[in-house]
Amino acid sequence: MMKNVNAEIISVGSELLLGQIANTNAQWLSKRLADLGINVFFHHTVGDNFNRLEDVMKLADKRSDLVIVTGGLGPTDDDLTREVAAVVLDKTITTDEEVLRKVEQYFTKNNLRMSENNRKQAHVFSGAKVFYNTEGMAPGMFTSHGQTGWVFLPGVPREMKSLMSTQVLPFLTAHYQLNQKIISKVLKFIGIGESLLEDELSDIIRAQTNPTVAPLAGEGEVTLRLTAKATTEAIGLEMINEVESKILERVGAYCYGADEDSIEYKVFELLREKNMTLSSAESLTGGRFIERIISIPGASSIIPGSIVCYQEESKINVLQIPRKLIQDYGTISKQCASQMATNVLDIMKSTIGISFTGNAGPNAAENKPVGTVFIGIKRDAEEPIIHEYQFKGNRDTIRNRSVKKGFELLYNYLKN
Amino acid sequence: MMKNVNAEIISVGSELLLGQIANTNAQWLSKRLADLGINVFFHHTVGDNFNRLEDVMKLADKRSDLVIVTGGLGPTDDDLTREVAAVVLDKTITTDEEVLRKVEQYFTKNNLRMSENNRKQAHVFSGAKVFYNTEGMAPGMFTSHGQTGWVFLPGVPREMKSLMSTQVLPFLTAHYQLNQKIISKVLKFIGIGESLLEDELSDIIRAQTNPTVAPLAGEGEVTLRLTAKATTEAIGLEMINEVESKILERVGAYCYGADEDSIEYKVFELLREKNMTLSSAESLTGGRFIERIISIPGASSIIPGSIVCYQEESKINVLQIPRKLIQDYGTISKQCASQMATNVLDIMKSTIGISFTGNAGPNAAENKPVGTVFIGIKRDAEEPIIHEYQFKGNRDTIRNRSVKKGFELLYNYLKN
Repeated sequence: MMKNVNAEIISVGSELLLGQIANTNAQWLSKRLADLGINVFFHHTVGDNFNRLEDVMKLADKRSDLVIVTGGLGPTDDDLTREVAAVVLDKTITTDEEVLRKVEQYFTKNNLRMSENNRKQAHVFSGAKVFYNTEGMAPGMFTSHGQTGWVFLPGVPREMKSLMSTQVLPFLTAHYQLNQKIISKVLKFIGIGESLLEDELSDIIRAQTNPTVAPLAGEGEVTLRLTAKATTEAIGLEMINEVESKILERVGAYCYGADEDSIEYKVFELLREKNMTLSSAESLTGGRFIERIISIPGASSIIPGSIVCYQEESKINVLQIPRKLIQDYGTISKQCASQMATNVLDIMKSTIGISFTGNAGPNAAENKPVGTVFIGIKRDAEEPIIHEYQFKGNRDTIRNRSVKKGFELLYNYLKN
Repeated sequence: MMKNVNAEIISVGSELLLGQIANTNAQWLSKRLADLGINVFFHHTVGDNFNRLEDVMKLADKRSDLVIVTGGLGPTDDDLTREVAAVVLDKTITTDEEVLRKVEQYFTKNNLRMSENNRKQAHVFSGAKVFYNTEGMAPGMFTSHGQTGWVFLPGVPREMKSLMSTQVLPFLTAHYQLNQKIISKVLKFIGIGESLLEDELSDIIRAQTNPTVAPLAGEGEVTLRLTAKATTEAIGLEMINEVESKILERVGAYCYGADEDSIEYKVFELLREKNMTLSSAESLTGGRFIERIISIPGASSIIPGSIVCYQEESKINVLQIPRKLIQDYGTISKQCASQMATNVLDIMKSTIGISFTGNAGPNAAENKPVGTVFIGIKRDAEEPIIHEYQFKGNRDTIRNRSVKKGFELLYNYLKN
């Protein structure tokens, strides 16, 4: 029923190859095409150079069913897309009178002299389907060459997106008789590494083709993207649910949420449900933990505050850690983490106190190597629970992993 | 003298073709290569598929002098870059014992079970130059095939950038005897908008071709990038200095630094020079201000700490703001900001106290519209200075602008 359409995206523009801008057009287009069930197999970026663009187009014509070209349709001499495509696809160029009138009107209205090369923007291929551009001058086009369909779009993101959304996507859906829905769901995991998660699920990941199951690693967490193709949304959702159940049977203990969920948001929700409040005492993380959860609107109902005690003296004077404890065990210790969590809970009058102390680098301190981190959790009158870690990475990574781990610990603690 | 090196960048990863992430690696790499005078002629993105990756690599081997491949070096089954490259470039794969030890140690230290496929991360090509990865597991590599040089790098941006900056770029400079120097300098401005800065400098920006002058706007600050091409570094620097002087004559009052300088680093430097210490009392910013300055290595010498007093009760109990003051003026007030700065200075025993209180949204509070922010600065026995702002934007933007403004105020205060 469904045709398999294999596509590629060609981005034309030397500014991309110089790194002056990121290729966000290719990303945006890829998402839209995936939504239609079109497989994007390649992105190819090339500069404003006749021979190289010609080679790139010839290759695309051979290997792809559908090629989307963005950029190089403007008025200047280095805009070569039409000229090169005319050669590769064996097309003649004509002037679209409607576009030309629009171009001329623009210059008249704005009291500008229209240079000859602006006529180029009205050039189209004979017999092409023309998509008129409401956001700018150069129109989009669709034309065929052998088995391959070619879409040409301006490179300006606003113009490209507008043409694509309102005209090209509906056209492609009809032209390729695409009638499938793409449903996807992202499962989020914490406390399990990417490779271990894949080990646990390797047979599912390998066997699944619809829905597909794709892992992606982030800092301190891993996600799995489930993507189903189906004729209706309901069927797609059912397919996703079935695979999701299989996955959660094995690794559900590490799954904290889906799609837009963040671990800090889940902690926030659990605290709110349980009518609990949270404060932090932060040394190496320097406020980064509390900052993350305060980013959530409504945090004021669950977060009284935090004490950032970066120097030893502020641990003693403000957080009231006994000087003797620091002399005996150091600030980077189980004992100090425990006292920090206990005291911040008392001072902030919260139900839970969490503490972070450790060495984020660059140098060893108190004979503790860079990356040594203690995280303490204290609830009401219970004994504090202290965890010790040895994180890798630079100062920033160590601080980030500490914060992530803090949320993971709290999440597991609150869930049980 | 100068060799012409024509390069391409191959990005491996299905997540790029699904549009889940933008290809920022290719942009970043392109800029760095351009700085060395290397021409980047193509970006080519391909998924985790053996045959397609093989075709893409074969094409690159034919058409380019230098190929940079990122991604696909991880531990999972769909990481295929090494296996495909071994075929295309006719290389044997061996295990690097140093990397393997590191991988094993990581799992042992963190009490994690190491799955068999993690050994893959220690696989390298026989005879390749290996670039050891301090930010992660899989190392980078350089190897040659015929006339073409191949660099392999992990796809995780942090790891890729670190390897590239510290090891690969110096290696390529030596290997290809690159002797065109690209000298660039970024001037950083705060307290002036992008369009005003461009207005002031429009003639210079337009007339300059070597060095070029390119403005870029960020959140709350603007930068100008000056880029000169020259045969020696000394000549390039002289060219830059000349244009820089012209620019600073007009807008020097807003320039706080250059290149890697950040406004928080300049504040840090000024505090250190003057032997001063800084603490913060943060309500709407929730620790984001102190977090930024604690990111700087060595911050412990100037930052005793911070009190994040997000709820009214913690302002009263911990920061000791009189309840009467809050009843009379509210927490979002000049008076509260003043008392917060004064009290945190006393509690943390610092030379300077800074305070942030305001409404970051989403709803109006205490009859103050979203975006109302008070920032207070208190030094020793001097009267606190309070500034009031009305920032635009969402919760995140308002909190960011408040933090940036706090650093700008401190910078100007400390400089004078």
